[in-house]
Amino acid sequence: VSCDSEHKTTTLKHKSILFTAASLSTVQEQYSSVQLFQQSMDQAIKEVDAQIANGIEVPIPKDLAGGYTHERHKLNYLTMQRAGKLYRVTGEEKYAVYVHDMLREYAEMFPTLDRHPSEKSYSRGKLFWQCLNDANWLVYASQAYDCIYDRLNADEKAFLETNLFRPYANFLSIETPQFFNRIHNHSTWANAGVGMIGLVMNDTVLVKRALYGLEEDGLDTAAKDNDGGSIKEEGQERAGFLAQMDLLFSPDGFYAEGPYYQRYAIYPFMVFAASLQNARPDLKIFEHRDGILSKAVYALLNLTDSNGEFYPINDAQKGMSYYSRELVSAVDIIYHFGDQNPELLSIAEKQGRVLLDVTGFSVAEAISQGKTQAFVPKSMELKDGADGSEGGLAILRMNHTGGDLNAVFKYTAQGMGHGHYDKLSYSLFENGEEVLQDYGVSRFVNIEQKNGGGYLKENKTFAKQTVAHNTVVVNQTTNYGADIDVANKRHSDRFFFDASKKNIQIASAKDTGAYDGVRMQRTIALIADSSFAKPLLVDVFDIDSDEINTYDLPCYYFGQLLLANMVYETRATLAPMGDQFGYQHLWEVAKADKLPNQTKVTWMNNQQFYSWTASTDTSDEFLFGRIGANDPKFNLRADPMFMLRRKADHAVFASVLESHGSYSAVSELSEDAFSKVTGIDVIYQSDDYTAVQIRHEGGTLQLVLCRNDSAADQSHEITIESKKVSWTGAYDYQVM
Amino acid sequence: VSCDSEHKTTTLKHKSILFTAASLSTVQEQYSSVQLFQQSMDQAIKEVDAQIANGIEVPIPKDLAGGYTHERHKLNYLTMQRAGKLYRVTGEEKYAVYVHDMLREYAEMFPTLDRHPSEKSYSRGKLFWQCLNDANWLVYASQAYDCIYDRLNADEKAFLETNLFRPYANFLSIETPQFFNRIHNHSTWANAGVGMIGLVMNDTVLVKRALYGLEEDGLDTAAKDNDGGSIKEEGQERAGFLAQMDLLFSPDGFYAEGPYYQRYAIYPFMVFAASLQNARPDLKIFEHRDGILSKAVYALLNLTDSNGEFYPINDAQKGMSYYSRELVSAVDIIYHFGDQNPELLSIAEKQGRVLLDVTGFSVAEAISQGKTQAFVPKSMELKDGADGSEGGLAILRMNHTGGDLNAVFKYTAQGMGHGHYDKLSYSLFENGEEVLQDYGVSRFVNIEQKNGGGYLKENKTFAKQTVAHNTVVVNQTTNYGADIDVANKRHSDRFFFDASKKNIQIASAKDTGAYDGVRMQRTIALIADSSFAKPLLVDVFDIDSDEINTYDLPCYYFGQLLLANMVYETRATLAPMGDQFGYQHLWEVAKADKLPNQTKVTWMNNQQFYSWTASTDTSDEFLFGRIGANDPKFNLRADPMFMLRRKADHAVFASVLESHGSYSAVSELSEDAFSKVTGIDVIYQSDDYTAVQIRHEGGTLQLVLCRNDSAADQSHEITIESKKVSWTGAYDYQVM
Ligand SMILES: [Ca+2]
Ligand SMILES: [Ca+2]
Ligand SMILES: [Ca+2]
Ligand SMILES: [Mg+2]
Ligand SMILES: [Mg+2]
Ligand SMILES: [Mg+2]
Ligand SMILES: [Mg+2]
Repeated sequence: VSCDSEHKTTTLKHKSILFTAASLSTVQEQYSSVQLFQQSMDQAIKEVDAQIANGIEVPIPKDLAGGYTHERHKLNYLTMQRAGKLYRVTGEEKYAVYVHDMLREYAEMFPTLDRHPSEKSYSRGKLFWQCLNDANWLVYASQAYDCIYDRLNADEKAFLETNLFRPYANFLSIETPQFFNRIHNHSTWANAGVGMIGLVMNDTVLVKRALYGLEEDGLDTAAKDNDGGSIKEEGQERAGFLAQMDLLFSPDGFYAEGPYYQRYAIYPFMVFAASLQNARPDLKIFEHRDGILSKAVYALLNLTDSNGEFYPINDAQKGMSYYSRELVSAVDIIYHFGDQNPELLSIAEKQGRVLLDVTGFSVAEAISQGKTQAFVPKSMELKDGADGSEGGLAILRMNHTGGDLNAVFKYTAQGMGHGHYDKLSYSLFENGEEVLQDYGVSRFVNIEQKNGGGYLKENKTFAKQTVAHNTVVVNQTTNYGADIDVANKRHSDRFFFDASKKNIQIASAKDTGAYDGVRMQRTIALIADSSFAKPLLVDVFDIDSDEINTYDLPCYYFGQLLLANMVYETRATLAPMGDQFGYQHLWEVAKADKLPNQTKVTWMNNQQFYSWTASTDTSDEFLFGRIGANDPKFNLRADPMFMLRRKADHAVFASVLESHGSYSAVSELSEDAFSKVTGIDVIYQSDDYTAVQIRHEGGTLQLVLCRNDSAADQSHEITIESKKVSWTGAYDYQVM
Repeated sequence: VSCDSEHKTTTLKHKSILFTAASLSTVQEQYSSVQLFQQSMDQAIKEVDAQIANGIEVPIPKDLAGGYTHERHKLNYLTMQRAGKLYRVTGEEKYAVYVHDMLREYAEMFPTLDRHPSEKSYSRGKLFWQCLNDANWLVYASQAYDCIYDRLNADEKAFLETNLFRPYANFLSIETPQFFNRIHNHSTWANAGVGMIGLVMNDTVLVKRALYGLEEDGLDTAAKDNDGGSIKEEGQERAGFLAQMDLLFSPDGFYAEGPYYQRYAIYPFMVFAASLQNARPDLKIFEHRDGILSKAVYALLNLTDSNGEFYPINDAQKGMSYYSRELVSAVDIIYHFGDQNPELLSIAEKQGRVLLDVTGFSVAEAISQGKTQAFVPKSMELKDGADGSEGGLAILRMNHTGGDLNAVFKYTAQGMGHGHYDKLSYSLFENGEEVLQDYGVSRFVNIEQKNGGGYLKENKTFAKQTVAHNTVVVNQTTNYGADIDVANKRHSDRFFFDASKKNIQIASAKDTGAYDGVRMQRTIALIADSSFAKPLLVDVFDIDSDEINTYDLPCYYFGQLLLANMVYETRATLAPMGDQFGYQHLWEVAKADKLPNQTKVTWMNNQQFYSWTASTDTSDEFLFGRIGANDPKFNLRADPMFMLRRKADHAVFASVLESHGSYSAVSELSEDAFSKVTGIDVIYQSDDYTAVQIRHEGGTLQLVLCRNDSAADQSHEITIESKKVSWTGAYDYQVM
């Protein structure tokens, strides 16, 4: 341990939300010899010094997101927080002066402000058009204030607290209960902002309000926010930060809205929790609910493809990843306050920056000590619902020579206002690229030209709809008739999940609520067999009803079709596939009116080949489509799809997807351009079991699935083609 | 210089096509200490040893490309050549034995063969469906034979030469004059194969035939090959390798068919020339026509984007690059026999392998000696036509902080059977990615599912057509009425080219032959101005006729439209834009019936923004389209486009394309998402001059173009908006 005499050290004189007295002095003394920390400091110094040179601007609020006043106040809180930390670590006066000057300007302006002139939000803010951004401001400003707190005299503190912080905290809570008291990420930010400024000011009333919510909120369970999300769920009895921790995450750390919003929401959870752990270690916040915050971070880190990008379920913009600043915070905080898992360090190395506080220092120091181990994402099931009883999400991952495949199978609850009607849908990823996509959100975040960066109309009319997903659509309608209130009350159910074997990983789920009177079971498996260079994806979708329905199974691939083995007719002119539930956005490019009993489609993307082989009936139909109809503002991506259609009461859609071969545009050589699967057959059906065989040039693979009993210890025996098959558990897989 | 006693050395006892006696002994002694050469040896050893282990297979010819016998004979010649070289360099007997055994099998089979059973080709081969592949076989087998020649006794040589090599050479020449005596890349292969085996056997008759062609060929100038290319041009008086060198390249080394075919054709040029230089240095082949072969290689290396990928003009599959094996040969040979340009070494380093002969050794040795310098592609004009009088191609390149832009402007002759009807078209590349694309070929080379890897019908009906390119289409017809015979007789004309200035690079060309009665001049400029982070692309397309015509200017962009400033109507159902000349393949997605006087479109691709701003008339129309109509086999890529349409006799399409800003899906921040160009105006028009001004927030840029006189020393003066403008040369550019 070196002790450089040049370091200016300051002593901690209050309960800080960022350091303890001991950790502050360690960081002050050692930071410059810890490379990643010093790098992060250098980056912050560069950016903050540029802002200091630019001078302080605190404009009267006026604009929406993207506009000058909005972006300026956002830049201010980001800069203030970093300037504060630079002061705390280096002792450089200029950073403290900058923070103090800026806070004084805010304290002078704040008492003069009414709510923001824009009336777009269900909870209008003061500096911003919505309280959400104001809460962001307070979360960051609290940290800035914490850093300079010890340096201010009583009058200076009183000026800021009386004119700015206390009224701001009250504004975001008492004066805006519909914002503060929800079980929702908006309120997590509100709770964190109010709680963190409370901790800095040692205001126990504010801290209690942050942890437990407003006792009286007078909220109506019929009220909605501007995205159509409900303000207060029926039966909601609690609010505040602890309630968010208890209710927004499943016991596995899955966040109801999905990873994109979990990434957004995780920041206030982590930073408020870290603040509590520093200032109120007696609360043992990281132990709350069996370490739920740590579970939430690990869930997020596992909800990524092999580039670290989040699976884009629900309203998610593609490309968001664990490189985001929220995940930098999460990784640093959970490393420091959690179990110091050395695998987290490899993610921090990729992120290339750390927080400028004790948590970031811990991470950077451990990296400099060579403790890093590779993070290995795992196959896992994440159960949904506050008590884990509302379905879940299965992640199946298999590595092979030179790559990986991962299937993400979704049988969650709706996920509130940002949820998609995508029950039993799945997507497939290879080497960090999408093979079968979930469309994601129809939104271009912070792209002004696209509705100011806000949600687009087509998000509701297409992206959320069932037909926009790789799952069955019944009678060309959306799950729950696209009624969010019904959706919020229902969920799919897990049936079984097994990722314990080397040659098969499998998940099965059911849904009886998405379509009234329709019972669905889908089973998704990754199978590794020595006849194939890469794992196969096997999909057995069992749909049962007492009535004859039309079942559509869309498949959103990417790239160029090479082969389709049925007789189809391409359309001379294109019309939409329907007029509602998302079909109005799909051009019908071609159609087959009957199918062979094995339908095969081969396409090429990213210099690889993909083949989809399905067991089909002569009377089935097949459609080739492309997104983009009824899209007057070119908001949609013109991605391709195909769709299998069957009219039946009971149908089993059994298919297998192979990723195979490769092509080089330089050598112009193609390898294994053809599918090796010769067929997939449903060879057994009863109320209790469904069995499929996958035939290929080198043999046959057989998968028997239970339909009613998934108990792991239950033994079963049936006779298939006069051969006895017996097994224990929910399924049987055999290489024939 | 180390001299390892373990090296087996063999002495050269004949005039080899691969080494001289001195160079062979140098390579044998030193190769193992030269890293890149040893690596290339290791790779060859691995692959050849695997083939030796597999055993020799010489099947009776039967299949087309992609089929077993075709691929096997191809693998055989590739393996034989490498085995031969391994023997020559290492002295390992097993490689010589393998080559000899294989050649003996061919010599036994060859006399029994008729022409290949497939009747698809205008010149059916013996081992393959077309002589072209047979010529490939002979080019490679000659090298293999050369390597083991010294080891065989007179009887062994006589057996191979009498039964295989001499009859094969006669078959490819005397017996198939329509293949041997063309001015065409097919014949280059034929000349090389016949010449190389002639050199190895020291057969001066064959070598002379290869160099000068057949004296009597009895060919008909009306005959066509199976791609519609002519066999013998009217007035063609010469044939053979020297004629190919004189007639297929322009004086600047541009090859009539474009870089994709130039890459394919360069191999026989280079390998036969290297063979001649080794065995017949008296011919000084690399000095022929002022070093045309070296010019051809440099032309190719400059016809690449910043990833080394060839600009996909004419029938070109995208992704082909200087990483191909043909360019490995070209770089090594031109380095060794040319001027030892150290910039070539940086390309060889990227290629990561060298030829296993004296040329590859020279390159690898120079790299190991640290001689490498970076290859810097240049802005240049490549004139077309054997005498350089048939138009040309301009490459404009500008670097900026963090990237590059390159515009490729095509005003060449047709380029024979693989040429596209794309007169005065251009494409734009940024950082090795296409911004405005040329569609390239409609073909999936060696992808069996797509017409066996051959040309697709849509290549003719779409990809070759004028409307598939970023250039003006007159009256919705293709250049020359898509008549190849007319096209072959005409060409565009260069007008001026200047890449000498820092702030502007500019090329201007004219065409009066593409549409009878229509006089066109297009000027493309890259302009660097301090108000813009990246260069602007300015396009002034002047079209003049005595009649009123419809002028369409298509623009093939990639990505997502963000903004279009005109009132347009999106189609509820889609119909093709027309029924011929490629329009039948374009879906009309939306249309504007009138335009503002500045039309602007902004789109987003690759996390960047692009804006196109054009000077338009109220009566102009604007179409948004997508490729893919009338495409029953899904052969076309569904790429987007837009198109400006004007009815006029004289029209000036003046537009400016900005690449601007950036977006991050991780930070969700967009920078400079909006165009800074406020307008572009045609401010002066006369028979002699056209002037445009580009207005932007920070000022005005003015470009005055001559229409009739491009002499560099001519002075001009005009009055624009009562200001005198005077300049010398073909254009004047000023920042106002
Ligand atoms: Ca990815
Ligand atoms: Ca490229
Ligand atoms: Ca006129
Ligand atoms: Mg979705
Ligand atoms: Mg529910
Ligand atoms: Mg083209
Ligand atoms: Mg011509």
